[in-house]
Amino acid sequence: MEEIKFIESFLLEAGVYVREMHGRKSDMDVSTKKYASDILTEADLEVQRRCVLALQQAFPDDQLVAEEEGYDTFPDDPEKRCWVLDPIDGTNNFMRALFPMFGISLAFVDKGIVQAGGVYLPVSGDLFLAERGNGATHNGKRISVSEISQLSAAKIEMDLGWTYEREDSIARGYRLLCAAGQMRCHGVAVVSLCQVARGDMDAFFHNTLNPWDYAASLVIVEEAGGMATRLDNTPLHLFDGGSGVLMSNSKLHEEIVCLLENTNSIELKK
Amino acid sequence: MEEIKFIESFLLEAGVYVREMHGRKSDMDVSTKKYASDILTEADLEVQRRCVLALQQAFPDDQLVAEEEGYDTFPDDPEKRCWVLDPIDGTNNFMRALFPMFGISLAFVDKGIVQAGGVYLPVSGDLFLAERGNGATHNGKRISVSEISQLSAAKIEMDLGWTYEREDSIARGYRLLCAAGQMRCHGVAVVSLCQVARGDMDAFFHNTLNPWDYAASLVIVEEAGGMATRLDNTPLHLFDGGSGVLMSNSKLHEEIVCLLENTNSIELKK
Repeated sequence: MEEIKFIESFLLEAGVYVREMHGRKSDMDVSTKKYASDILTEADLEVQRRCVLALQQAFPDDQLVAEEEGYDTFPDDPEKRCWVLDPIDGTNNFMRALFPMFGISLAFVDKGIVQAGGVYLPVSGDLFLAERGNGATHNGKRISVSEISQLSAAKIEMDLGWTYEREDSIARGYRLLCAAGQMRCHGVAVVSLCQVARGDMDAFFHNTLNPWDYAASLVIVEEAGGMATRLDNTPLHLFDGGSGVLMSNSKLHEEIVCLLENTNSIELKK
Repeated sequence: MEEIKFIESFLLEAGVYVREMHGRKSDMDVSTKKYASDILTEADLEVQRRCVLALQQAFPDDQLVAEEEGYDTFPDDPEKRCWVLDPIDGTNNFMRALFPMFGISLAFVDKGIVQAGGVYLPVSGDLFLAERGNGATHNGKRISVSEISQLSAAKIEMDLGWTYEREDSIARGYRLLCAAGQMRCHGVAVVSLCQVARGDMDAFFHNTLNPWDYAASLVIVEEAGGMATRLDNTPLHLFDGGSGVLMSNSKLHEEIVCLLENTNSIELKK
């Protein structure tokens, strides 16, 4: 499929640019006029511009759905070919983190189904690719989800999201938070979802994700043998307006869905 | 001070060995008889054995307090010289993680005060060192904590700990969890504390840490301009039997202490 080749070459090229911008940020000192957030914004927009141009050349009839600059509207016809881009996922980690946990994510969607996807971590050089029906790879090597079937032995990520949604997220995930063997929160969906695909973690749950946050990872996780649904176990359609996302190694999926059932609220007791 | 030189050379030497063991784990396939957890246990014990031997040569009268094999008892006389080692902190990340977020941690303590400490991340090669009164460094470059003073703009780590203590941790940290700008949970105290020292994060809170989990990081954070106390803002003495630890960029310390006040319990409401 030529689309997966497009994804790979776009990610590697854009990655060179993002790596250079990230290095520029790291070299700054406080007297530098250009701040980390300016560099991030510039990089974010530039990756999207490059994607628009590359698609105009390779697939001029296809639509782009992306996070920035007016591309964040869903297709009128969800059956049509489109591409879903997150120029930089994990923007806070781009700006402040010891480990460069952020990535570029690009997916190709046809008939409402993600057919191919890629996630590239430009500083560490980790490249995840998957094509529907052909498996998922990490740096060219086939990957698969973990075999862990007991929640008490599992490593789960629950992204706690933004401050305004934090109470809802914790209420929804509280029983899962308390039951899992290990809990993580890395602040970057694409890196965590690729970790589920690679078997480094066993599930990832987020109350409010946009399609560009998980489109590419979805096919990577599924092709690695994992499962992806809404939080209530219903099918995950990119443009259905839903926002809760659960991806897992599939063995733990049902048990996690049960724990997430019912939106609860939390009361603190002295 | 010769102790900081000892710390640096021990960490670098032990790091070569741990990096090799971690690589051996990554090269394994499922048919390999030796499992990741065996390699981890072997590496953990071997680092401690090497530390015992190196101290016997360099500082034969000093005591070692460490996580493994009968060294986990506190000194009879807390005023005496001693060393505090965590051979590998972040053991789960050693076994399963895309990014090698684990570290070796060694501190030198005299008169109950951490006088020098070092944390080494053997795969990424990040070395953090600090000597009381002489500042803290990351790979030889002076570091300092962040300047962020508003919780809504802050990145906070709350380690959720083991399953059995998860409910207590969440109850204690709930108000902080809901108020912070960004939340993280990386599952490795030494890496997160060094991130606070380097200004990548603004505070770290854990309900139940042992002295070897934070002894070296304590002097690194303090020498980078940060603050380290118990959760109720009382002084943090390594061997006082307490377990809650809060380290921050100092500007946020008081506000966080207020949010952590009172041990609450949580009730779920439908």
